[in-house]
Amino acid sequence: MIIRDSMKVSGQGLYDISEKIQSIVRGSNIKEGLCTVFLPHTSASLLIQENADPSAQNDLEQWLNRLVPENDALYTHTSEGPDDMPSHIKSTLTAATLSIPIENNKLPLGIWQGIFLWEHRHNACNRNIILHLQSDISAI
Amino acid sequence: MIIRDSMKVSGQGLYDISEKIQSIVRGSNIKEGLCTVFLPHTSASLLIQENADPSAQNDLEQWLNRLVPENDALYTHTSEGPDDMPSHIKSTLTAATLSIPIENNKLPLGIWQGIFLWEHRHNACNRNIILHLQSDISAI
Amino acid sequence: MIIRDSMKVSGQGLYDISEKIQSIVRGSNIKEGLCTVFLPHTSASLLIQENADPSAQNDLEQWLNRLVPENDALYTHTSEGPDDMPSHIKSTLTAATLSIPIENNKLPLGIWQGIFLWEHRHNACNRNIILHLQSDISAI
Repeated sequence: MIIRDSMKVSGQGLYDISEKIQSIVRGSNIKEGLCTVFLPHTSASLLIQENADPSAQNDLEQWLNRLVPENDALYTHTSEGPDDMPSHIKSTLTAATLSIPIENNKLPLGIWQGIFLWEHRHNACNRNIILHLQSDISAI
Repeated sequence: MIIRDSMKVSGQGLYDISEKIQSIVRGSNIKEGLCTVFLPHTSASLLIQENADPSAQNDLEQWLNRLVPENDALYTHTSEGPDDMPSHIKSTLTAATLSIPIENNKLPLGIWQGIFLWEHRHNACNRNIILHLQSDISAI
Repeated sequence: MIIRDSMKVSGQGLYDISEKIQSIVRGSNIKEGLCTVFLPHTSASLLIQENADPSAQNDLEQWLNRLVPENDALYTHTSEGPDDMPSHIKSTLTAATLSIPIENNKLPLGIWQGIFLWEHRHNACNRNIILHLQSDISAI
């Protein structure tokens, strides 16, 4: 089953999409199977990380911003703005797709795990998400 | 099919879980399908890498320790110890989930490939692993 | 369904394999399902990234080469040449496996997304790719 969704974003940052995904899984009535979250973009990415303390997310963003700064003299791909090439690099270091088991009609995320869409651009306003949900044969 | 497993760890390092996973795949009797390994933690991660020469694994650990050192003045998320924020960053740069085909009732890993749980904390002692195994319809 | 493929490479670089994979998906006649691309190597990797402007790919390669240079005094795993340990690290920071939904008998890649095999060695000449394609039950 393919489900297309989208979400509003406003500037760089980690957007928690855990409940959005869990809700779609619940609605599917799939008891056991596999959920794949796919992001059809190259300057935003997916991440499973600590969702409890905002300071962890903040440090993660600051750390990656320092590793991949804007206005690096190395960049030649600069026509789409100073945040464009860093966005591609940041996406490269994280993920465009995540597959997570479905158990008891939900994703068995760890107690501190959230699923995040990581927006790397300053001015993006909408991002698409493509979900694939598959039920185990014996669990239909 | 969902299978929950766990393992003992003792300190930072790469723990080869290839045989553990292959053994579960063998026991499933699935000839052809997909195996997803999911780690419900945010300070340990999964990696497929060179399993033959311990020096490669050692260099990998040393390199990542240098890229993501403890006691970086950037960190504000420090209440859980100096290895906590580096663990989240290291996990971010690697993977929480891996999907690998099943062929002839085993994972067709390359001759030099091993699957590793990468423990990033000094004092963790137990990690959970959630496996999803799915058989192809035509291969039942 | 497992499909084994291989491809010629000649030196480091990003090789666009999007059409190769899309062609295999088309040939499978699967309308809806999941495609997993698995690379059984530890010194090449997989990436979904910007496919339109070669300067983006070039910057990405240059950036990663600077982050993970050859001849780093840290390396002890040097017997297979100066590009060997950097290859393992670069693979670690990207992916050995990618799962992408199949929708309407193709991968719904974003308009700027390509799937790349990223060769990290100077002298590799052939790389294997293992594909797993699975059809949704209700979509057969």
